[in-house]
Amino acid sequence: MHSSIQEQLQVFRESQKNRGRLLINCPDQPGIVAAVSKFLFQHDANIIESSQYSTNPEGGTFFIRIEFECPGLRSKEEELKSQFKEIAETFSMEWKLAFVYELKKTAIFVSKELHCLRELLWEWQSGDLLTDIALIVSNHEEAREIAESLHIPFFYLPASKENREEVEERQLQLLKEFDIDLIILARYMQILTPAFVGAHPFKIINIHHSFLPSFVGARPYDRAHQRGVKIIGATSHYVTNDLDEGPIIEQDIKRVDHRDHIDDLKKSGRSIERSVLARAVKWHLEDRIIVHENKTIVF
Amino acid sequence: MHSSIQEQLQVFRESQKNRGRLLINCPDQPGIVAAVSKFLFQHDANIIESSQYSTNPEGGTFFIRIEFECPGLRSKEEELKSQFKEIAETFSMEWKLAFVYELKKTAIFVSKELHCLRELLWEWQSGDLLTDIALIVSNHEEAREIAESLHIPFFYLPASKENREEVEERQLQLLKEFDIDLIILARYMQILTPAFVGAHPFKIINIHHSFLPSFVGARPYDRAHQRGVKIIGATSHYVTNDLDEGPIIEQDIKRVDHRDHIDDLKKSGRSIERSVLARAVKWHLEDRIIVHENKTIVF
Amino acid sequence: MHSSIQEQLQVFRESQKNRGRLLINCPDQPGIVAAVSKFLFQHDANIIESSQYSTNPEGGTFFIRIEFECPGLRSKEEELKSQFKEIAETFSMEWKLAFVYELKKTAIFVSKELHCLRELLWEWQSGDLLTDIALIVSNHEEAREIAESLHIPFFYLPASKENREEVEERQLQLLKEFDIDLIILARYMQILTPAFVGAHPFKIINIHHSFLPSFVGARPYDRAHQRGVKIIGATSHYVTNDLDEGPIIEQDIKRVDHRDHIDDLKKSGRSIERSVLARAVKWHLEDRIIVHENKTIVF
Amino acid sequence: MHSSIQEQLQVFRESQKNRGRLLINCPDQPGIVAAVSKFLFQHDANIIESSQYSTNPEGGTFFIRIEFECPGLRSKEEELKSQFKEIAETFSMEWKLAFVYELKKTAIFVSKELHCLRELLWEWQSGDLLTDIALIVSNHEEAREIAESLHIPFFYLPASKENREEVEERQLQLLKEFDIDLIILARYMQILTPAFVGAHPFKIINIHHSFLPSFVGARPYDRAHQRGVKIIGATSHYVTNDLDEGPIIEQDIKRVDHRDHIDDLKKSGRSIERSVLARAVKWHLEDRIIVHENKTIVF
Repeated sequence: MHSSIQEQLQVFRESQKNRGRLLINCPDQPGIVAAVSKFLFQHDANIIESSQYSTNPEGGTFFIRIEFECPGLRSKEEELKSQFKEIAETFSMEWKLAFVYELKKTAIFVSKELHCLRELLWEWQSGDLLTDIALIVSNHEEAREIAESLHIPFFYLPASKENREEVEERQLQLLKEFDIDLIILARYMQILTPAFVGAHPFKIINIHHSFLPSFVGARPYDRAHQRGVKIIGATSHYVTNDLDEGPIIEQDIKRVDHRDHIDDLKKSGRSIERSVLARAVKWHLEDRIIVHENKTIVF
Repeated sequence: MHSSIQEQLQVFRESQKNRGRLLINCPDQPGIVAAVSKFLFQHDANIIESSQYSTNPEGGTFFIRIEFECPGLRSKEEELKSQFKEIAETFSMEWKLAFVYELKKTAIFVSKELHCLRELLWEWQSGDLLTDIALIVSNHEEAREIAESLHIPFFYLPASKENREEVEERQLQLLKEFDIDLIILARYMQILTPAFVGAHPFKIINIHHSFLPSFVGARPYDRAHQRGVKIIGATSHYVTNDLDEGPIIEQDIKRVDHRDHIDDLKKSGRSIERSVLARAVKWHLEDRIIVHENKTIVF
Repeated sequence: MHSSIQEQLQVFRESQKNRGRLLINCPDQPGIVAAVSKFLFQHDANIIESSQYSTNPEGGTFFIRIEFECPGLRSKEEELKSQFKEIAETFSMEWKLAFVYELKKTAIFVSKELHCLRELLWEWQSGDLLTDIALIVSNHEEAREIAESLHIPFFYLPASKENREEVEERQLQLLKEFDIDLIILARYMQILTPAFVGAHPFKIINIHHSFLPSFVGARPYDRAHQRGVKIIGATSHYVTNDLDEGPIIEQDIKRVDHRDHIDDLKKSGRSIERSVLARAVKWHLEDRIIVHENKTIVF
Repeated sequence: MHSSIQEQLQVFRESQKNRGRLLINCPDQPGIVAAVSKFLFQHDANIIESSQYSTNPEGGTFFIRIEFECPGLRSKEEELKSQFKEIAETFSMEWKLAFVYELKKTAIFVSKELHCLRELLWEWQSGDLLTDIALIVSNHEEAREIAESLHIPFFYLPASKENREEVEERQLQLLKEFDIDLIILARYMQILTPAFVGAHPFKIINIHHSFLPSFVGARPYDRAHQRGVKIIGATSHYVTNDLDEGPIIEQDIKRVDHRDHIDDLKKSGRSIERSVLARAVKWHLEDRIIVHENKTIVF
């Protein structure tokens, strides 16, 4: 990794050494917030930010994300986790306790078109994408130069229908070796096998170059042009084994008109794709997303 | 019609007594603009606004819309039309010459939900929708009060699968009787027969409560909620015999999030529907739209 | 008040009979959420929605808005208020406990242009603006017809520089008589005296027809046209005694271009003005706004 | 210049060897379009795109931009120019004939913040900004690395109040040496002298980091935060000798809320600044802008 970025991330981690995030979902009932906030208060944690949502106050599902500041957090990790279990059991919670100083490790998969990769790297260099980008994987050579200029390991793994499983084996090996938490498909134009996807539930973020559910599948801009739409879009979603049907994280759009040819749509679309993907990745890294019934709650 | 609106429209017509619009599409070739602008100049017409577009300068289709001011236009109508024929033949033009003082006559079809109707009537009362709203047709009684308060003839024609053809016969009779140029489906929740649609090519404007081609057909907000989209939309299009597949005139969108239930989507959607439909109708009334290969050119 | 709206509001109040809202601001410190949520839990209240914000976790100001459902709330009003005082004192809170079934009483002030008034009344009739619109005051007669058609008392009080104080005396008398909680200036083109404004701190909402702080004062569309801006806007804010300098609640904008004359700006602007004002009023009615240092926190 | 970009620009110039643009403004009167289109037709030019506008058809100013394709254009440059003079005199035109293959030469001035520079260079590398970026001038060293990596001459000219005139002398020398057509101030935080500005009328494009006329001058994000606005913006304009008062070319905005601190506004603002400046520069390079009475007509 580029040394100045490394230093910058180190400064960030140090500044966040007492910062934690608690994500919970459970059946709604009175007393959840009281129990959780009491727990945090008893451990000297000050709630900095808190968002909650309930699908239905009577018998629905309750979601909460709490960001807190807790002096000496690093030495209390295990204590907090083990003591929270009791509350979690009382309320039948699914929960996650994340420590901000533990940067998530990211792998970026990309093909020939580099605009989404560039945006991610740009945000990363500016300190806006707080993650350890551990490697870049591509079925083409286009991204090598930019990867190497930032000292990010680059792996050229030409993939096709024929060698898909073989290539994925190598990819899985790399993901394990680099201890990857999140895979970003930054315009990676290869289909992943059900086995690969199944092994990474809600750990793969894709950018689809249409406003889903319009134009699922291949060549969305051509089809948008053919249909004569007045607005194009892009959608970032978690990858599941239903093509382009995974939980939507973020979408955005741009006006077009009759003068825009397919190439103009592609060009306009690129700027939406890159910002939509960057926002989705950022929210994932900040533990803002909870998936529920194939939808996302974004706090 | 309400007398103050009638007066207002009369003032408008008088102020536009020399204003005409020429719409042309033809195979592209050099010399079209030169020929048309020479023709207008020779008839003392001053070009006020002009927009053009070509699908492809080499062998494509050329489109132009010209708005002009021509002293004594009312007495020159026939002369202009007959003399333009020669140019039209030379360049194999499809063309239309519209006179702004000849207000288009409009019929609004509506069911129970009145927000789109209200918006159209509001814009109409404000002098922003320059048309003669000749009648309102509904399969429910909800719109009667507002129609009658503005002295617009209201026809209650309860329609269902069973009596569709009978009802359409009565509707066609009314459209003929009132000499209607444009039918606006302002949330009219009945399907029209192929015969009815076929009799009014690009003369029926519908508002569909989704961002087409997402959620073609029934209950789009329910399906948008089910899919977990982050943006909802509305689409105004000409009605053809392919359900929700006619040429799109205008679309717009609004952000939503996980907190929005189906009712919230419907409520948010209403404000998009009403503005999208109003814009599409306005552009049609101003002769701004040319349909080409199931797409619209909006000048 | 129109009887069907009255019925509708009655149904709403009944459905909300257990719904309360707690708004707090105080110096930030650990334990606030724990104390408040414990209090609510002890009184059988279930937190439905909660939003919080801190200007700075270390030594800043903490804000929270909690919406809760509490069985038998109407009979517990006084108990809750008196018992919360202890917590409030411990944390030096400013706080407010609002009961959703106690509809706020609203007075709308308007001049000649009725688009903002119409939007508010429309939303009100649709059940989207949950308030008791008790009276409409105007210095012109234009709004009388629409007010009377909805059976809202209408008071014509012609105001000018000369009789300002006299007129305000009558207005104050009416506000007292109707027990008004909120005054909405829906394009009311008279300046209010410092005494009048001072008597209603953060109880008067105005719509200014520009994107503040651009074009403070008179004739903003003329000045926007003169300056050649590419975007126009509208701003809703609480009225203070600094002209157009009160806390901003909501703003929105619309693109314009060189073809738009002043009248086009005004027309475009009207649709922004009406939606911006309607949103601001709705947020106020839902107790979503806290004012802090001449800025608004909108939860 | 980087060789691959140079090749790409060469391909573009070759593909546009017959493409010209005619920009005209003159007092409005009938016959202008007829005369101009006849002239082009007589010289075998096919009109590809045409836009026009009139401030007022009766006695106003008329503007037109015509893009045309003319076989053998390079050999007809002088002939067209000299023969058009007659028409121009007849109608008292100000006019410009631009040849698309003659790329404009650009100088970018930048200080420490590089996001606008990066965006311009990115668009340029992608073939979306068709210009010859001849040099980069800065009063800091931050931009050197990126400039040199693309083989663009970089000049470090530390400027301050004290040495302003001296530095400008060197800058003017460079602009002359490189034969510069357009100066882009991509967050260049030095004030230019009246002499420098006066020497480049409508040839200097600046990006101001606020929604003008809000927050003219220094530290606009701080002042936006202070005022509590709900929307921030950026404005690109031609530089004149009235600070931030030159003709506005493009503006855009982004929603913010009470949670956004000054640093968040700056971060959000950067993405608006870069796209607003890029659009303004592109329109200038495509000869789409005519300045009239301190406003821009953008075709």
